[in-house]
Amino acid sequence: MLNLASDNVVGASKPVLEALIAANDGAENSYGSDQFSTRAEEMLAEIFEHEVKVFLVSTGTGANALALSALSPPWGAIFCHEESHVIDDECGAPEMFTDGAKLVGIAGVAGKITPEALERTLTRYPKGVIKAVQPAALSISQVTEAGTLYSLDEIAALGATAKKHGIFYHLDGARFGNALVSLGCTAAEMTWKSGVNVVSFGATKNGCLACEAVIFFDPKQAETFAFRRKRSGHTVSKGRLLGAQMVGYLEGNHWIDNARHANAMAQKLANGLATTPGAHLPWPTEANEVFVILPAKVHTALAKADIKAAPWASLSLPPNIHVREGEAFWRFVTSFATRTEDIDHVIGVAHGA
Amino acid sequence: MLNLASDNVVGASKPVLEALIAANDGAENSYGSDQFSTRAEEMLAEIFEHEVKVFLVSTGTGANALALSALSPPWGAIFCHEESHVIDDECGAPEMFTDGAKLVGIAGVAGKITPEALERTLTRYPKGVIKAVQPAALSISQVTEAGTLYSLDEIAALGATAKKHGIFYHLDGARFGNALVSLGCTAAEMTWKSGVNVVSFGATKNGCLACEAVIFFDPKQAETFAFRRKRSGHTVSKGRLLGAQMVGYLEGNHWIDNARHANAMAQKLANGLATTPGAHLPWPTEANEVFVILPAKVHTALAKADIKAAPWASLSLPPNIHVREGEAFWRFVTSFATRTEDIDHVIGVAHGA
Amino acid sequence: MLNLASDNVVGASKPVLEALIAANDGAENSYGSDQFSTRAEEMLAEIFEHEVKVFLVSTGTGANALALSALSPPWGAIFCHEESHVIDDECGAPEMFTDGAKLVGIAGVAGKITPEALERTLTRYPKGVIKAVQPAALSISQVTEAGTLYSLDEIAALGATAKKHGIFYHLDGARFGNALVSLGCTAAEMTWKSGVNVVSFGATKNGCLACEAVIFFDPKQAETFAFRRKRSGHTVSKGRLLGAQMVGYLEGNHWIDNARHANAMAQKLANGLATTPGAHLPWPTEANEVFVILPAKVHTALAKADIKAAPWASLSLPPNIHVREGEAFWRFVTSFATRTEDIDHVIGVAHGA
Amino acid sequence: MLNLASDNVVGASKPVLEALIAANDGAENSYGSDQFSTRAEEMLAEIFEHEVKVFLVSTGTGANALALSALSPPWGAIFCHEESHVIDDECGAPEMFTDGAKLVGIAGVAGKITPEALERTLTRYPKGVIKAVQPAALSISQVTEAGTLYSLDEIAALGATAKKHGIFYHLDGARFGNALVSLGCTAAEMTWKSGVNVVSFGATKNGCLACEAVIFFDPKQAETFAFRRKRSGHTVSKGRLLGAQMVGYLEGNHWIDNARHANAMAQKLANGLATTPGAHLPWPTEANEVFVILPAKVHTALAKADIKAAPWASLSLPPNIHVREGEAFWRFVTSFATRTEDIDHVIGVAHGA
Repeated sequence: MLNLASDNVVGASKPVLEALIAANDGAENSYGSDQFSTRAEEMLAEIFEHEVKVFLVSTGTGANALALSALSPPWGAIFCHEESHVIDDECGAPEMFTDGAKLVGIAGVAGKITPEALERTLTRYPKGVIKAVQPAALSISQVTEAGTLYSLDEIAALGATAKKHGIFYHLDGARFGNALVSLGCTAAEMTWKSGVNVVSFGATKNGCLACEAVIFFDPKQAETFAFRRKRSGHTVSKGRLLGAQMVGYLEGNHWIDNARHANAMAQKLANGLATTPGAHLPWPTEANEVFVILPAKVHTALAKADIKAAPWASLSLPPNIHVREGEAFWRFVTSFATRTEDIDHVIGVAHGA
Repeated sequence: MLNLASDNVVGASKPVLEALIAANDGAENSYGSDQFSTRAEEMLAEIFEHEVKVFLVSTGTGANALALSALSPPWGAIFCHEESHVIDDECGAPEMFTDGAKLVGIAGVAGKITPEALERTLTRYPKGVIKAVQPAALSISQVTEAGTLYSLDEIAALGATAKKHGIFYHLDGARFGNALVSLGCTAAEMTWKSGVNVVSFGATKNGCLACEAVIFFDPKQAETFAFRRKRSGHTVSKGRLLGAQMVGYLEGNHWIDNARHANAMAQKLANGLATTPGAHLPWPTEANEVFVILPAKVHTALAKADIKAAPWASLSLPPNIHVREGEAFWRFVTSFATRTEDIDHVIGVAHGA
Repeated sequence: MLNLASDNVVGASKPVLEALIAANDGAENSYGSDQFSTRAEEMLAEIFEHEVKVFLVSTGTGANALALSALSPPWGAIFCHEESHVIDDECGAPEMFTDGAKLVGIAGVAGKITPEALERTLTRYPKGVIKAVQPAALSISQVTEAGTLYSLDEIAALGATAKKHGIFYHLDGARFGNALVSLGCTAAEMTWKSGVNVVSFGATKNGCLACEAVIFFDPKQAETFAFRRKRSGHTVSKGRLLGAQMVGYLEGNHWIDNARHANAMAQKLANGLATTPGAHLPWPTEANEVFVILPAKVHTALAKADIKAAPWASLSLPPNIHVREGEAFWRFVTSFATRTEDIDHVIGVAHGA
Repeated sequence: MLNLASDNVVGASKPVLEALIAANDGAENSYGSDQFSTRAEEMLAEIFEHEVKVFLVSTGTGANALALSALSPPWGAIFCHEESHVIDDECGAPEMFTDGAKLVGIAGVAGKITPEALERTLTRYPKGVIKAVQPAALSISQVTEAGTLYSLDEIAALGATAKKHGIFYHLDGARFGNALVSLGCTAAEMTWKSGVNVVSFGATKNGCLACEAVIFFDPKQAETFAFRRKRSGHTVSKGRLLGAQMVGYLEGNHWIDNARHANAMAQKLANGLATTPGAHLPWPTEANEVFVILPAKVHTALAKADIKAAPWASLSLPPNIHVREGEAFWRFVTSFATRTEDIDHVIGVAHGA
């Protein structure tokens, strides 16, 4: 079986696992005061070219929900794409961690929201009107749920809108590395230079076993975070588990290499699927995810060949694209572990169908 | 430096780390559907000699708070020792996860509560009286916060009281293995045979890096748990991380061996400290923790020798024992990684002071 | 000044106030065990022709949020119109009381949702998929936020859809009386005979000072409600305040008379505004609210005459209706206290503009 | 039947009811913007001789829980007497409104806590230690649950302790008026001059039907309160209901007269019961509550005479006082409506037993 349903079906990449092994011996302070967690924070400060407060946790849902809880009161409105991970795929974690804030979904093609749509939505949540939940934060996903990317200009434009309205700006970077290498920009440009206040810096999907960093650029916004993390059970006692993974992940640009490889595999797959008769890709492949609508005989052939992808559905298809009777809408995700021959195999089966 | 401040200052034991490494290659289903998590559940069913529903998480606070949230409504009262971990050391996690249940602390010497004290406390929370939070659950720690153990009879007597009052019974087994080998009983006897409904089965302190199991003996009580775990961000995507650790921990009775070693080290240390002039141990050493009140020159000597223990304080000291001016109350914790020579060293320094 | 901005700008109707005065003397049991609250429950059982559990509270937001909290777990999805009161006008109360359930807004013209739209939305929240919040309840407003009514068939069709999907059905009846007299049906037909499980039975807007009843038709669904009401501070100690209002409201069909009067005043106003040059009503006037888009000179004239209405905005305007530059979209609400001469005055000013 | 079980078994006092009636006609802005609520705030500013932010609500539980929610984060510790109303009688409302703060009960005779006991308790909640909930607020009841009073010096001493530790200070004044007339001080002296930050100013028990004011002396602390009140369903739409009651209550010192009368009745009852053979009063009668331990024949005689009081139990009895076999511990509460002949009757029955 070839499993391309997600980038979380594989284990850790070699350098990450080795870092974990190397960190295992000896005594370390617990609860995040270990040398590895400390080193990870330093490395991230260098990478982001900014003072940072870093909190490591073991899941993306934990990272996002905790980050948002630091940005919104219980009566806050958090604006996000109507199909974002925070609104659709976390079983209400942001609501739990914020004690009931409202996630307001905004429609938009290709998983992206525009400043205009955000502006329009904001008019429904006037500041100071007591009966309405109050604008608190904007949260975008980079890479989006459609596998697409916001350009730097788009991120900055949304940041300007957020700033104008006095709301915080969170970036869900579950696939931060994949986005970064694809845009070819710096981590600083993709975040604080574009107005982002807090980042969920994902490492699990791109090489770690379980490690995500919540990164604040303003220590004031992070003041309550240690309590929030502890109280939600996300402060790992043997903190080296997280610290060592993150150090191994960042060291020697390993994370960049992993992301570049995954993206290249996705691009190769996209090219192969695009030329499959009857198949069409609703969105450009801009990171490590390929979304494709497949004709019946192709998805049957792939299934028969034991190639696993994720069945998909979306509200943000381009207006002219539809999934017709008999067709299947699938998502393929590549990772650091995807091999060229895997992709060749998928394309071969698809083309031979 | 010799760090005996806690059993979470060390890494993973060798077989656990090896299991983790061995599980790293290849694709696995995510979110706990991997073969290792499945195997862990089977192994725990065998160990507990009972049908079980097992949910792996990465922290003890997460395990306890999630377990309690399945047992108490927001207007419930959860009875526990006044110095238990759930009430004192989790920054309000049980309150967060239960959406506001009240943890009612009960006093008791040596970290233990008695059925009589529980009965007395229950009279203050009459069932059906709307203004009072409603009795929902009893939670005990085995090993207790004083390093002591409930006997099987004591566990069962509390279980009978809980059952009589129609409340659930949770056992916080952060040091489950250490308790088990010390009592010399079966896991079944220490839990469901004594009336316990749900166990936080700790593995982190006794050999894992980050792995705890919430174990239900009645699947009905576990019905909402998968949603609770996901919604709190405690469903690790690469579930093999947790599954593999647990399998490595349980396999070949490795956890029993680890616990036995840690307990032996603690016993040896307790004996050595008990014969240190001026030192006195407030409670018997029944697992892998040694609590000791040390005279000034001894704790100074230990500190000078860079031997680290945890400064302590307790409400549940025996009535005749006090920490006097100049004395220091310390907790030493041994683990699978503690060496005989470490203990000899501590005793040597203490005796030589 | 003539204030028609809402039906909550007036006080109590005469019989309600008299009932309150009559109930003031003597001792009564507190916390809802008074004779008036008991009598109110009996009267509502007769009116609804069904066994009922009734809980009186002082606000509509309290009634709705409490009702929904009895129907949805924290990880539940509550489906409602995208501009319903529960989603837009209660500052997140349902989220607070449900401990974080997600209110899923569904679009629909004239403030109404259709079974088809509900079905379509439900496909996005598959039962048993752990990452998705779980379908828990449908909540409709009768009268809707657009002042329109669901027909009995429409209520029943939504009820059938809710039942098919195993979700509860809540009716926000802030203007229950106005809806009832307009449909000319029984309270039973508008609720449990059409599949409704729980009703927020509003009395404040239609003659009380502050009194709403949460009505359950199945006592099992009400089992936790007394705790929920107390814990949210909604159990009034001198319960006669609520009980007496409700008795005075229901006695001798007073509530029906009030609603009939308010509706007639609204109908008269609608007719007068509909014939005002340049004015157009986006929705039919089916209860006691008139929504109208007014040309500049008319709304200026009304404002000058010190006639107060509520500026409005809506996502559920019919596709062909827009508010153009210079026009104003206003809501007028009539009540038991509105006089024929008030309406004549408004129409006179509008026509004379 | 003569019901002295509580001061909430009676209706409104005459001036309050008349104020309510007088306020009923005409249109008023809703949601607390009515002229009466505005006037109530002005009157309270005069009474407290300080700028105030006033929020009217309909229940004491609502007032207390909302007040505390403005003073404590979810990971906060709120210190109060172990038998205070907020910890024992509100079904967990403070936990719900604070999203899970921990109410830490402190023992103390006669319902009172001392600065020393508070200091001692604070050592268990060190600031900045992440695993511990963080000291947030002190909440005292004046009148206490034992019917006793803190002296001004005692209030100020606790205030100094609170200030020293950087925590807020809340006063639950459900019987504020009774305390004030008994101490013979000003409202300012009993509150902000003694360090109190926020007051639950009860009016229901002393003459209103349902009206409590949350009073802030620092507008900054009140900044989020309007959202909190709305979101908890405690913003009454026809705000005149609350505003008019409060105005009627305060006007012409009516509240003072009511409190003075109730206290005098209690004093008279206390004197009569104290001289009843076999009866003893555990605490002095300092406001409008009389607590008494009655011999069997007396409580039987009172019950036979259909005189109703509340059966009581307490952890804060003086060390030398116990309720013995056959005795009954009762609480009698007097109010503005208690008549001299009622008290004579009770004493007559008691003495004749």
